[in-house]
Amino acid sequence: MTYGVGMKLDHGLIFMSDTRTNAGVDNISTFTKMHQWTVPGERVVTVLSAGNLATTQAVMSVLDERTKAPIDREPSILETPTMFRTAELVGETVASTIARHRGEGQEAESTFDATLIVGGQIVGMPPRLFLVYPEGNFIEASADTPFLQIGETKYGKPILVRAFDPEMTFVEAVKLLLVSFDSTIKANLSVGAPLDVVWYANDSLDATAPRRIDASNPDWMAVSDGWGDALRAAFGSLPDPDLDGLPSR
Amino acid sequence: MTYGVGMKLDHGLIFMSDTRTNAGVDNISTFTKMHQWTVPGERVVTVLSAGNLATTQAVMSVLDERTKAPIDREPSILETPTMFRTAELVGETVASTIARHRGEGQEAESTFDATLIVGGQIVGMPPRLFLVYPEGNFIEASADTPFLQIGETKYGKPILVRAFDPEMTFVEAVKLLLVSFDSTIKANLSVGAPLDVVWYANDSLDATAPRRIDASNPDWMAVSDGWGDALRAAFGSLPDPDLDGLPSR
Repeated sequence: MTYGVGMKLDHGLIFMSDTRTNAGVDNISTFTKMHQWTVPGERVVTVLSAGNLATTQAVMSVLDERTKAPIDREPSILETPTMFRTAELVGETVASTIARHRGEGQEAESTFDATLIVGGQIVGMPPRLFLVYPEGNFIEASADTPFLQIGETKYGKPILVRAFDPEMTFVEAVKLLLVSFDSTIKANLSVGAPLDVVWYANDSLDATAPRRIDASNPDWMAVSDGWGDALRAAFGSLPDPDLDGLPSR
Repeated sequence: MTYGVGMKLDHGLIFMSDTRTNAGVDNISTFTKMHQWTVPGERVVTVLSAGNLATTQAVMSVLDERTKAPIDREPSILETPTMFRTAELVGETVASTIARHRGEGQEAESTFDATLIVGGQIVGMPPRLFLVYPEGNFIEASADTPFLQIGETKYGKPILVRAFDPEMTFVEAVKLLLVSFDSTIKANLSVGAPLDVVWYANDSLDATAPRRIDASNPDWMAVSDGWGDALRAAFGSLPDPDLDGLPSR
């Protein structure tokens, strides 16, 4: 499993993903699930991936044109005219990669599926954020649904639903993402540290390098410890229910 | 889907379940998923069910011996010598019901599976709480895992993990359960109001009637509204992360 979130804020985009991959619970490794393509001043594209690692690595290699000798590479993901076409390109690449593996060799126990979050900006157009399905089709984040999740999405969703605010700063967004990821990691072995995070300020058209947050990061530890206390305090502040006959002790 | 929780507190047991059943999203009904058997002064047994409604209704009918004429009924669930045997009886009934339907007629698209929470007390022995799987085997709640969930368990788990305390009163337990159910209902259409709740004080050996909490219940509305505000306040109280290069706006 995996957990990845992309958020569309008023002043930019922010992405976070975990790095745990597993084949069963006894075979765990660390791989980044965050990939970026940049032409400074012209475009920045960030992709988060969840699902079968062989599929997502193949998709990234094809998008990167690592199938070609270095001098022949002109990745088409750097040449799409719009972010919509970028999402389509990623979708086509995912769908064709899955179709190829499905047709080959013996049947696998698990599926080859992969789901991706694609976000970024191309000069002259607004930033956009998409969720690409294994079938290659996709949905776009909107004012009504300003964040998209992939992988093990359920544990970390309630806090996003309650606390997300499109006007939040990058600092607040990182804090919110840390709470959401911390809740997920505490509940599900298949999501794990370190975390990768990257942010993009609208119209900057330049990539910041993804930051890695490991389990000993003091900011993360402060949020994790503080969240347990803050939750209990929040819970204590609620009014007591008064059901007929409910004993007070 | 369904959401049900059984909790083992120091001074008793408490159970909550939703009442929504669905066959697709366009066919939604309300059925209770909470069943009780009592011999005052001798035993109280509460069962929550999740899964295929035909299976769970059949299991409850068989346990009730509603397969027999009223005068011949001596439900064996009222005669098991221990709560362990009660859980075994429920498990055997579930497994045989599922096996019978699997063998019959055409193959169904969905499975006939059902998962149950079984808890209660028999005179002279301590109260016990079990989770019974579709295969008929079961696990017991312990000091390490003092609450058990069935159905759509993920959205409502983080708050249980963080705020559960075995010393809590029934009032606090109802409040915690309302928060956990509210988070789940806000995220998943297949879990819905009204909610059923019942509590059992250790050694009382008498059942309280389950209370029904509907969506307009002022206690639930107060908890639901208060929880959104309290969560945002809790979130605001966390220290700001200070990642290298993270812009403060």
